[in-house]
Amino acid sequence: MVSTAVRAPDSRQRFIDAAIRLFARHSFAGTSLQMIADEVGVTKSAVHHHFRTREELLNAVIEPLLDGLRVAVTAAEAHRSRPARAECMLTGFVDLAVGNRVLAHVLVGDPATIEMLRSRPEVSDLVDRLFKLIADTDPGVGGWIKADMVLAGLSGGISARTRDLDDDVLRRHLLEASRRTLGLRAPRRPGPAD
Amino acid sequence: MVSTAVRAPDSRQRFIDAAIRLFARHSFAGTSLQMIADEVGVTKSAVHHHFRTREELLNAVIEPLLDGLRVAVTAAEAHRSRPARAECMLTGFVDLAVGNRVLAHVLVGDPATIEMLRSRPEVSDLVDRLFKLIADTDPGVGGWIKADMVLAGLSGGISARTRDLDDDVLRRHLLEASRRTLGLRAPRRPGPAD
Repeated sequence: MVSTAVRAPDSRQRFIDAAIRLFARHSFAGTSLQMIADEVGVTKSAVHHHFRTREELLNAVIEPLLDGLRVAVTAAEAHRSRPARAECMLTGFVDLAVGNRVLAHVLVGDPATIEMLRSRPEVSDLVDRLFKLIADTDPGVGGWIKADMVLAGLSGGISARTRDLDDDVLRRHLLEASRRTLGLRAPRRPGPAD
Repeated sequence: MVSTAVRAPDSRQRFIDAAIRLFARHSFAGTSLQMIADEVGVTKSAVHHHFRTREELLNAVIEPLLDGLRVAVTAAEAHRSRPARAECMLTGFVDLAVGNRVLAHVLVGDPATIEMLRSRPEVSDLVDRLFKLIADTDPGVGGWIKADMVLAGLSGGISARTRDLDDDVLRRHLLEASRRTLGLRAPRRPGPAD
């Protein structure tokens, strides 16, 4: 059975995947629904069937990331001490950044996209809680700056040089560097001499 | 004497300043020459008189930053030891990032802009040298990842929360956090107990 219409669940995901590829190349502001239609090889009205605006598409693109962030922030806030909260948040954030490398890189520096996302009160609240969990390792301006640096570094700091690294290797190095910046001790694990 | 034409040296700089403001709000891809003309309050052809394309304008915008980077990279490469080279490069980069906060933030995460800039061989070479000077503090993958994080963190890591900080305070905290990440010892200065 051959049909010219793309089937609903698949095509929705194909548009999302195409959008991520195009955002990475041209930024959100530089990507139109027409470009996404061209990338998938359908008409613009086929895209419109699923997403009326680019904003709707962007929200669909980041929804899984937001779900993950929601879970990670809530888990971190359940810990008692500030270092334990920061360590848990850091681990959760690194997992999300590594698992969504392209998207994380796209989101972090695009002012238009960030502004649009932060205009959703739920997103803005989530980002504030994430920031606080990391910044509280050093109350005051120093903690804010370290949190800014670590969060920007983790989101934007995966360049072409390290893009093909194994997830586990990348995760380990990102965690180690972030802990050093924040002055967090690594959770005790059997070392080589144990 | 009233003239409808804007004078050459002033207006060129006014277009550059307006461009930086608009890039920060809408990203490079989301900013047209028409928007820059509207922001300054002139016609599009007045902008065209100075800059034929957006690319020309972007190059004019980043030229002072590139000049600074060229000086800093060359100065750092003149040092003998790897830590001294990294420390010198770090200090120079932090000065540039703090002195050009808005622009640094705009540049770092905008894939279209970065791609366009890196297509200039001179820029690409300069960024590679900058990266190497920082990454060499820890030869191998770990050093690359730390350099990625520190450079992305320094460029993108100045959020609204810390935007109004005094240059000196911001510089001191950024340097301290970067040194911790890279495992660099701070240059000896008289401490409070000395």
